[in-house]
Amino acid sequence: MTTSTPLSPTPRSTLRRLSDRARTDRADLYAVLDAGLVGHLGIVLGGAPVVLPTGYGRDADTLYLHGSTGAATLRAAAGGAPVCFTVTHLDGIVYARSAMHHSMNYRCAVVHGAARPVTDPDERLRAFAVLTEHLAPGSWSATRQPSRKEAAATAVLALDLTEASVKVRTGPPGDDEADLALPVWAGVLPLRTVVGEPEPCPLLPEGTPVPDRVLSRRA
Amino acid sequence: MTTSTPLSPTPRSTLRRLSDRARTDRADLYAVLDAGLVGHLGIVLGGAPVVLPTGYGRDADTLYLHGSTGAATLRAAAGGAPVCFTVTHLDGIVYARSAMHHSMNYRCAVVHGAARPVTDPDERLRAFAVLTEHLAPGSWSATRQPSRKEAAATAVLALDLTEASVKVRTGPPGDDEADLALPVWAGVLPLRTVVGEPEPCPLLPEGTPVPDRVLSRRA
Repeated sequence: MTTSTPLSPTPRSTLRRLSDRARTDRADLYAVLDAGLVGHLGIVLGGAPVVLPTGYGRDADTLYLHGSTGAATLRAAAGGAPVCFTVTHLDGIVYARSAMHHSMNYRCAVVHGAARPVTDPDERLRAFAVLTEHLAPGSWSATRQPSRKEAAATAVLALDLTEASVKVRTGPPGDDEADLALPVWAGVLPLRTVVGEPEPCPLLPEGTPVPDRVLSRRA
Repeated sequence: MTTSTPLSPTPRSTLRRLSDRARTDRADLYAVLDAGLVGHLGIVLGGAPVVLPTGYGRDADTLYLHGSTGAATLRAAAGGAPVCFTVTHLDGIVYARSAMHHSMNYRCAVVHGAARPVTDPDERLRAFAVLTEHLAPGSWSATRQPSRKEAAATAVLALDLTEASVKVRTGPPGDDEADLALPVWAGVLPLRTVVGEPEPCPLLPEGTPVPDRVLSRRA
């Protein structure tokens, strides 16, 4: 599938560049999904779209999504309604010599499909593990496992990665030839997400050491 | 409006906490929108949702969105179809003593409405300025302004901030009382986006200084 990403103005003269951004390699898709913590789940409710940030985890070609069983979006998705799940990383602000060629460097994965409610107890437990490990590697085995009641109160959806696409923009601005002589700085201001100092829960006994599974993310 | 955010599992016992996350203050909404660079635009195409990262800028209670006139999503939105535009900031990974209480700290703005195509030439120019200044403050007056052709090839939509909500989660994990004695580290690993060293366009004359409008973002 191909979709146009309206992240930045893309006049017809830049259509070639836009198509360069479409990458179909599965490894690229996995990389973009695995590098993210939260995606945006779109679903149609009463004819209108609803887009909400949603936690996820990947197991081979299955994405697991989770949320409260009380959430209308999750209920609709569990009922087989088509969904769209998008994960975006911003890698840089692209400064051009002309206002309209300003852009963003980014990586984006877009997954379409009908989500399937995960009801099998074994798959549900597996999904909870995948979701926990995606957000906090090492936490599944280090923390208390879900009680029957907790597990029941959490909706888990599975979304197949069959219909998925990746778009990537990298590199300097795509200024028009005629603008190159303008005395205007152009280039990229790179962006990245960094992890700060761990903030212990105030209810934690003093001196509780920060485990490696947390500390190692600062590297 | 109220929506449930399926960012993390929210069993019934935490519903009180969830409702604390709903903030209606306009200043909060502006702050979340103004701090973001890209939002996720949801639109219904052929009965299915499409969610794509989209650049934006805010002018009082109007959000401007832009993209190629060739993008099917933008065309549908310009035709008055309902849209949802969501901006999310991830502030931290919340480590709990139990797997299911792991969560994210975040700020999220969700805007619903029908977008209006901006056709008036003066408003279009104003919108381009707002969009450019949102992404790259100071760039509008420092760079070449849009040509008539560029302006024509770029769709600009206006989305009213009338129907908008903000959700915020902050603070430590919400572990169950019974889990507090577990010998498991709990707390928050804060996340933030940082700006790296400016990367000049390779076509820039050597020695072109990096302007303050770019350098000041490193602070």
